[in-house]
Amino acid sequence: MRNLKVRASRRNFVGMMGLLGAGAAGTVASGAIGAAASAAGSEVNQGPATMDMAAAQTPAATTAPAQGEMTADEMDAMHEAGVRSFPAMTEGLGGQPLAYELDGDVKVFKLTCQTVQWEVTPGNKVEAWTYNGVVPGPEIRVAEGEKVRIHVTNESLPESTAVHWHGLVVPNNQDGVPFITQPPIKLGETFTYEFPIREENAGTHMYHSHLNSAEQVTKGLLGAFIVEPKDPARRLAYDREYTVVLNDGPLGGFSLNGKGFPATHPFAAKKGERVLFRFMNEGLMIHPMHLHGMPMTVVAQDGYPLPQAYMCDTLNIAPGQRFEAIVHATEVGTWAFHCHILNHAEGPQGMYGMVTVLLVNE
Amino acid sequence: MRNLKVRASRRNFVGMMGLLGAGAAGTVASGAIGAAASAAGSEVNQGPATMDMAAAQTPAATTAPAQGEMTADEMDAMHEAGVRSFPAMTEGLGGQPLAYELDGDVKVFKLTCQTVQWEVTPGNKVEAWTYNGVVPGPEIRVAEGEKVRIHVTNESLPESTAVHWHGLVVPNNQDGVPFITQPPIKLGETFTYEFPIREENAGTHMYHSHLNSAEQVTKGLLGAFIVEPKDPARRLAYDREYTVVLNDGPLGGFSLNGKGFPATHPFAAKKGERVLFRFMNEGLMIHPMHLHGMPMTVVAQDGYPLPQAYMCDTLNIAPGQRFEAIVHATEVGTWAFHCHILNHAEGPQGMYGMVTVLLVNE
Amino acid sequence: MRNLKVRASRRNFVGMMGLLGAGAAGTVASGAIGAAASAAGSEVNQGPATMDMAAAQTPAATTAPAQGEMTADEMDAMHEAGVRSFPAMTEGLGGQPLAYELDGDVKVFKLTCQTVQWEVTPGNKVEAWTYNGVVPGPEIRVAEGEKVRIHVTNESLPESTAVHWHGLVVPNNQDGVPFITQPPIKLGETFTYEFPIREENAGTHMYHSHLNSAEQVTKGLLGAFIVEPKDPARRLAYDREYTVVLNDGPLGGFSLNGKGFPATHPFAAKKGERVLFRFMNEGLMIHPMHLHGMPMTVVAQDGYPLPQAYMCDTLNIAPGQRFEAIVHATEVGTWAFHCHILNHAEGPQGMYGMVTVLLVNE
Repeated sequence: MRNLKVRASRRNFVGMMGLLGAGAAGTVASGAIGAAASAAGSEVNQGPATMDMAAAQTPAATTAPAQGEMTADEMDAMHEAGVRSFPAMTEGLGGQPLAYELDGDVKVFKLTCQTVQWEVTPGNKVEAWTYNGVVPGPEIRVAEGEKVRIHVTNESLPESTAVHWHGLVVPNNQDGVPFITQPPIKLGETFTYEFPIREENAGTHMYHSHLNSAEQVTKGLLGAFIVEPKDPARRLAYDREYTVVLNDGPLGGFSLNGKGFPATHPFAAKKGERVLFRFMNEGLMIHPMHLHGMPMTVVAQDGYPLPQAYMCDTLNIAPGQRFEAIVHATEVGTWAFHCHILNHAEGPQGMYGMVTVLLVNE
Repeated sequence: MRNLKVRASRRNFVGMMGLLGAGAAGTVASGAIGAAASAAGSEVNQGPATMDMAAAQTPAATTAPAQGEMTADEMDAMHEAGVRSFPAMTEGLGGQPLAYELDGDVKVFKLTCQTVQWEVTPGNKVEAWTYNGVVPGPEIRVAEGEKVRIHVTNESLPESTAVHWHGLVVPNNQDGVPFITQPPIKLGETFTYEFPIREENAGTHMYHSHLNSAEQVTKGLLGAFIVEPKDPARRLAYDREYTVVLNDGPLGGFSLNGKGFPATHPFAAKKGERVLFRFMNEGLMIHPMHLHGMPMTVVAQDGYPLPQAYMCDTLNIAPGQRFEAIVHATEVGTWAFHCHILNHAEGPQGMYGMVTVLLVNE
Repeated sequence: MRNLKVRASRRNFVGMMGLLGAGAAGTVASGAIGAAASAAGSEVNQGPATMDMAAAQTPAATTAPAQGEMTADEMDAMHEAGVRSFPAMTEGLGGQPLAYELDGDVKVFKLTCQTVQWEVTPGNKVEAWTYNGVVPGPEIRVAEGEKVRIHVTNESLPESTAVHWHGLVVPNNQDGVPFITQPPIKLGETFTYEFPIREENAGTHMYHSHLNSAEQVTKGLLGAFIVEPKDPARRLAYDREYTVVLNDGPLGGFSLNGKGFPATHPFAAKKGERVLFRFMNEGLMIHPMHLHGMPMTVVAQDGYPLPQAYMCDTLNIAPGQRFEAIVHATEVGTWAFHCHILNHAEGPQGMYGMVTVLLVNE
């Protein structure tokens, strides 16, 4: 399951899965969401899904009548169908931890640039340009003081590419800007990046294309690069964490972690837990993310701890920015969590795009 | 008069009206603005205005020549006419305090969703979807620790609706998200919300539609929900306050508190007063609000006090965000106050949309 | 050379030029950038350039094949040509210090509004509306407690105009809003502004048109107005400083200090120096500026010192806002510095618009 990582201070994986299965008592759609979320823990988004099934769960957006021709009841029915299909199954799951091999004290990663058909919402497949076939690309996670080597192969892109390690302090010739710090990685070629992870560079960072980037990044050549602090005393205190990658590419539309509602993944927590959200905007627009029910405490910007944390319920995130925010999950229920530029999240036929929920269970 | 509220620490209402009537000595248009502002205190925006009169005050935007055909003098004349007509009379006034009845210790409010013709600028009426017939909807103001019950009736909307209490920590089943926390409120139906106002939830919040919201909110289904702190020691120190609701709906255009310049309402203060502005963005775009003449001290975000206040003269406000900022009115004069995305505020034919003034009088 | 100002704590001008000439060892394009930057120190952007030469350095954007017709190698070649031509020579250099005369203790400046042909990128000349013939207008720099008088003459604009001193606390009748605080400055007329520079008003401010401003400002009627603190103890500690004016006018496109990549000017520093960047957004869009290689420490907003500085690598700047940020130039190399709304910085044919570099040399 995506972005649910067990850490020293947390319950085990089985325990967490229970959170999603429990649903949110007392709400209209709790049964649908609860059941789907439970399924999500074991099978949704884990591989090729049955398209017939996905299609059956999907609001028939493409064949829907224009708004002016819809009755209010028809509108309601489409909105309800969207909610009840959430979280909808789609093929492909991005953002999973990237495995590495050790070469001495160097962690060696491999990223392969591939074009794939990516299912953003049920039945809606678009051509994506990816790292290792998924959007977002796999998560790279290391710690301060470690050394990394990353082999990047342009296997099947129709263009050359290069990778910028956005937020990381690296030697200039590892910075990934074609013709300034390196030659482009042409089709069939491999470029190897190697750099130490610097002290004081912990936090939520990104990797993405830096060639024809407005197109290559929004098409999917993006991923999270998380750096843990070396000093345990500098680690944030939280019980679980989620990464939220915002994107608004013209091909895939508005998305969270590579999927649009109702195929976005729900976030879950047990009552009383502290949940760390790692936000990063890889799109071309600004997105103010609004969490219902509970405030967020913003603790870091672009990986750097804020001198004083501040609270909000709507966090404005510009392209290239990252924020770390902690939610104290005090309120039980199914809480909407969406971009508050409302036409990035809802239309006459129902919610879409940048919408998910935070499920808080007893 | 809108948003001029007398509080314990302030002068009385008559005294405040004098502020507007006095105008700003020594400025070119002080007479026009002063007189109009004086009128504003007693009659402008107080009910049905004479449309002939309003039309006479309005720049003839719809019959204006295209920019390329205008001489510089013609442009100047149109700009001047716009300023001299400010604040222009229009029918309808939103954001007034909403009365309640007490049922035991519960404050009971009523919101009725109605379609009306709303005059955004003189002579420019658009179909608005409203709470109680006005844009913004009436202001709900309560205190921490109180209990509220709010009956929402869909009287005449062409669609179903639901109300989200944006910023308030409420039980999940009162959160207003159709098919997740409640069924939609269909035409003719009433849904009753009831919840306690939580401790530590004081501040500037909002209520608005959460069904087909990109359309319903920007068409007018929005209002301010202000929560006073329970502990008087936590109350901000200020002499008067104004709420500023930003909107940019495709129907009404760029507006402040439901009106576009020159029908926007001027804000007024006496020299030396501290004025609290409660900003909230209900539109689909970001709006950096720029006050001429004096800085703003930003003290709270989304209702939460900032750990350290900061100063600025241009406050960037994303959709869904609220900010509380205090202006120490040290500078006498008529100070422009507008969105600094300049095409939200001015065109070749003069100022429009998100423009008003802060009048500071001796 | 633009915006390289020698201050008490810095090396002399000749020493600084050496910084640019040294290039960045070990990077692919260091030779091209180093040589061009060296040239920049002595001749680029210093006056009328040879257009044939400039054209030869420019990617043939206007005659380029459409993206779909380009091969990957053709794309790479165009990207490389763009980088290798950087910093490209263009005619005209804005933002240079504005000279003044003393009349008693009053510093007297002259601004003349002129239409000129302005070369934004090599060979791309657009009609600009300027102060003193350049974009940005010349920099006005004074100190708290000083008095200024500024004669503004509308020499050749097709429209009337007026100047607003954005961020400065001035008497109301010097605020520059036509028909509210002054009559417009018609063709051939001169308006004289005079005001003292207030205490506690140090920082990075702006001057720009406040008549038909969405058009007049974005066409070039804009400039930096820098106020030094009176008290030396309040001065920021830095070794050199640069002003970065963002603009996105429909005529000139996305630009930094009046130029688009590859004609933007590189910023330079010696390793270990602290570099102050003064950002100001004079456009109609928000621009999150991303610096590669090193974080920025944001110390002031709209001229007001932040109660606590914060660090970031992507600084979101809305229209009308100014930020002061210090970069500790610890990392040697040629670091890309660009707006992270990626289509403001790059297209299929290469980088353009809001892109430059920070060169850090040993």
